[in-house]
Amino acid sequence: MHVSTILALLLCVSPTIALWPLPRQISSGTTALRLSSSFSINLSGVHNPPKDLRDAVTRTQGYLRNDSLQALVVDRGASFAGAIKTAKSLGSLTVKLTSSGSVKSISQEAVAPLESRIEGYTLIVPADGSSAVLQANSTLGLFRGLTTFSQLWYELNSDIYTLEAPFNIVDSPAYPYRGFMLDTARNYFPVSDIKRTLDAMSWVKINTLHWHVVDSQSFPLVVPGFEVLSAKGAYNARSVYTASDVKDIVAYAAARGIDIIAEIDTPGHTAVIEKSFPEHIACPEASPWTQFANEPPAGQLRLASPSTVNFTASLLTSAAKLFQSKYFGTGGDEINSNCYQKDEPTQTELANQGITLNEALDKFTQVSHGALKNIGKTAVVWEEMLLAHPVNLANDTLIMVWISADNVASVAQKGFKIVHAANEYFYLDCGGGGWVGQNVLGNSWCDPFKTWQKVAYSFNPLAGLTEDQYHLVLGGQHLLWTEQSSPSNLDNVVWPRAASSAEVFWSGAGGNVGTALPRLHDVAYRFKQRGVNPIALQPEWCALRPGACDLNA
Amino acid sequence: MHVSTILALLLCVSPTIALWPLPRQISSGTTALRLSSSFSINLSGVHNPPKDLRDAVTRTQGYLRNDSLQALVVDRGASFAGAIKTAKSLGSLTVKLTSSGSVKSISQEAVAPLESRIEGYTLIVPADGSSAVLQANSTLGLFRGLTTFSQLWYELNSDIYTLEAPFNIVDSPAYPYRGFMLDTARNYFPVSDIKRTLDAMSWVKINTLHWHVVDSQSFPLVVPGFEVLSAKGAYNARSVYTASDVKDIVAYAAARGIDIIAEIDTPGHTAVIEKSFPEHIACPEASPWTQFANEPPAGQLRLASPSTVNFTASLLTSAAKLFQSKYFGTGGDEINSNCYQKDEPTQTELANQGITLNEALDKFTQVSHGALKNIGKTAVVWEEMLLAHPVNLANDTLIMVWISADNVASVAQKGFKIVHAANEYFYLDCGGGGWVGQNVLGNSWCDPFKTWQKVAYSFNPLAGLTEDQYHLVLGGQHLLWTEQSSPSNLDNVVWPRAASSAEVFWSGAGGNVGTALPRLHDVAYRFKQRGVNPIALQPEWCALRPGACDLNA
Repeated sequence: MHVSTILALLLCVSPTIALWPLPRQISSGTTALRLSSSFSINLSGVHNPPKDLRDAVTRTQGYLRNDSLQALVVDRGASFAGAIKTAKSLGSLTVKLTSSGSVKSISQEAVAPLESRIEGYTLIVPADGSSAVLQANSTLGLFRGLTTFSQLWYELNSDIYTLEAPFNIVDSPAYPYRGFMLDTARNYFPVSDIKRTLDAMSWVKINTLHWHVVDSQSFPLVVPGFEVLSAKGAYNARSVYTASDVKDIVAYAAARGIDIIAEIDTPGHTAVIEKSFPEHIACPEASPWTQFANEPPAGQLRLASPSTVNFTASLLTSAAKLFQSKYFGTGGDEINSNCYQKDEPTQTELANQGITLNEALDKFTQVSHGALKNIGKTAVVWEEMLLAHPVNLANDTLIMVWISADNVASVAQKGFKIVHAANEYFYLDCGGGGWVGQNVLGNSWCDPFKTWQKVAYSFNPLAGLTEDQYHLVLGGQHLLWTEQSSPSNLDNVVWPRAASSAEVFWSGAGGNVGTALPRLHDVAYRFKQRGVNPIALQPEWCALRPGACDLNA
Repeated sequence: MHVSTILALLLCVSPTIALWPLPRQISSGTTALRLSSSFSINLSGVHNPPKDLRDAVTRTQGYLRNDSLQALVVDRGASFAGAIKTAKSLGSLTVKLTSSGSVKSISQEAVAPLESRIEGYTLIVPADGSSAVLQANSTLGLFRGLTTFSQLWYELNSDIYTLEAPFNIVDSPAYPYRGFMLDTARNYFPVSDIKRTLDAMSWVKINTLHWHVVDSQSFPLVVPGFEVLSAKGAYNARSVYTASDVKDIVAYAAARGIDIIAEIDTPGHTAVIEKSFPEHIACPEASPWTQFANEPPAGQLRLASPSTVNFTASLLTSAAKLFQSKYFGTGGDEINSNCYQKDEPTQTELANQGITLNEALDKFTQVSHGALKNIGKTAVVWEEMLLAHPVNLANDTLIMVWISADNVASVAQKGFKIVHAANEYFYLDCGGGGWVGQNVLGNSWCDPFKTWQKVAYSFNPLAGLTEDQYHLVLGGQHLLWTEQSSPSNLDNVVWPRAASSAEVFWSGAGGNVGTALPRLHDVAYRFKQRGVNPIALQPEWCALRPGACDLNA
């Protein structure tokens, strides 16, 4: 027997390593346990269980039955066939809601303010076949526990088994915000792609879809009262998200414990609005675009114009009402001052009002954020709004740090809440070369590729902060800007990489890149069984031999 | 009207830009022309047309009917609706074989020796509706011409049209070898993936699949007389290529003008053989692998052992007989001398025979290449066999240059034929980060990503050579090593990037990266219509506005 085989067997007897994200506390044993063919999940411990919890139970039963994931070892578990055949069988999982008071649905809890959400749970799986028990103070916590439970099992000869009973898990997230950002403006993604992504996100306990839904290139969101924006600004009549699509997506997400923070980026990144409301856009498609915008086409909202400010506030209000989230993104990144300097109406307006561009931006922000506040929404902005412009932001504004993770220190110094989104760790689109034309070598500003290793295991969410600032870090997210992505590569550009931030922000920093790899293989192989197609992390030879392809093996 | 819109319209009236690879000579006009609803391809100019030509005609008719590709301009061609509706209609394409003598099939011509293949054709499409004419000296040339013909057309309101009639095309490839290499050993690809890839290759006139079918990690090829190799060395019983699969793939390829050069890499990259024939493998899965191989698992054929030499010659012979090609790859890259130094049987054997390792490698090579020669096959090797080891190679051996494009000069100096495969231009797998475990930052030896721009438009196949050496350059290829690839990402990691080498080696160097981009969009969008899913090159906004996203636009 080769050393690598022995190593594989040793690791095989720790299949709890396959849980992702790692629970905060876990103990496990060495006893084989099968799921009974009549295994059931018992909701009697939840008074009047809400429909989305019952649906989650049904989905979990489906995963248990259909994952058919063989253990990732050379013999795919065959050497344990005897132990599995004679193992005790688990007949049920008893689900108990421990909170008193009225039972809220997963969907309601998923869209509560970030810091008030309860996602923790305890899960006990005895080795003797007596019922497993999942307990939580919230249906959202129960949902997270069901997700964990579904990752415990492998399949061999139609038996669904674990070798590591009993389990005792006490779990809750390190950070309340664990997100994934999808840009649906550079290239369009059908609703089915978004739903499949939401499912995958839920499997690794990501709880936020930051939906960068529109941008300068296209406006696929159908906003009530502003339908002309998508009618003229979507790539085509089919590449839109109708109000009914949005409702469907929001409900689908919430039932999976995911809040959707939509974003309409302002005042930059709005060129497409010119097709419908030319009076509101400065420097539309101005040339050369490099002088007017970070990418083509140029065009920004005429932020000094009172009519444009009102238009923006109304648009944001109407768009935000489509979503249940307490949060809404107003953007604020990459504002190009040259665009405004060359825009005569803006210059005239500034002169008439006797204000500077920064003062105009402040007014613009007060009105648009105020409009969101009026409908109970908190604004989410990119870091420039706090760090690059002298704008007065409400204290509860969420700041997304994208230019550099180092900038969180400045955000914390100003006392604002932080969402990590630094390009050098979290931009899934980087490393594929540049996409602008006439670029002979095809390099890109954000090369190289951001590996899952760097992202997850050399990243510390609290780096550069003092202990009393730690509470300001709400979490973070991977991001997919889609200049070079489309439905063709969605699954494999996102997965399993995005699972690495999901773990950092659930389990906390300090993961081990060596032991993470076999678990991440498990994530990828299980995703595939469930219809999502992640990229291969290694040759299958390595996936079946944990550790054998390590640098020092 | 914006400048970009005008630019788009200007470029739109040159849809011949969409041909890929660019024909060597082309003239076109400005007349709209439709395909008649009764359009047919007339083979009466080919005496007893072979079945694969008739099938190619049927497929071409299918593409013409089903591509339904709208022009990549903002209005998708709508502004030309009037011109299209009133255009003359083309009733037929007349296909003529101009050679005398017996008619060979495409499949026969596709596997002829590289320098004897005739792939040129002429294609005339008049503007007045009279029959178009495709002529060639070979059915293979006719096939290339049909491929070109199928790229001329767009769809609008169910009309299939061009705006650029008449066409007059005289075309033939700059280099006889235009390849794509697929590794099916690190991760396995089902037959359907290979067939889809062969179709896509044929659409851009790639004529060689270099099939790196087995390697140290797995042995999916079922070789007659050596079935145990795949029985014990494939990832699982389904992940194999049976003799019948191979026959099917070879026929499928040949009918599409593609020769398959299979490779069994020797004496390195053979660890998996140890599972079936332990006596033939030195340092099997030796640890630490970094001292014994470039990647895990270590293991090399005991090249000094007469029994291993005979085994290898028999294996290569049996495997090569599965393929119709005149060529067969024997590998020869990354031979690790430490593996042999630490292998007692090899050291004993060398001592007994009184020869050095290099002399043993030479004998090993003479016998294995001699065996191939006996069945009429020419050996193809990686560059080390010529440049790093003092091995006597037959003059007709094809040398694949992968370590650096600079090394072609040394190969040419020795008078050998060259296939370009340099990692810094052509490795499609680079730039996704490292895949070995315990690699905290996840970087890789062959970062960064190799862009299509660098590959195709800063690469000169003749660089560093003297004019009298030019004839030694047979062509080149993109390569996909699959440590981090699988069916999940096959289409989007390969396409449309691999089209860039297809063009360099068909049309010759000196392409224009600016005008290539809209044509490459066209390739990508047409591929998608045909069921292959390339990665997005740019936001759709850019794809519909040729030039508008150029660096200087």
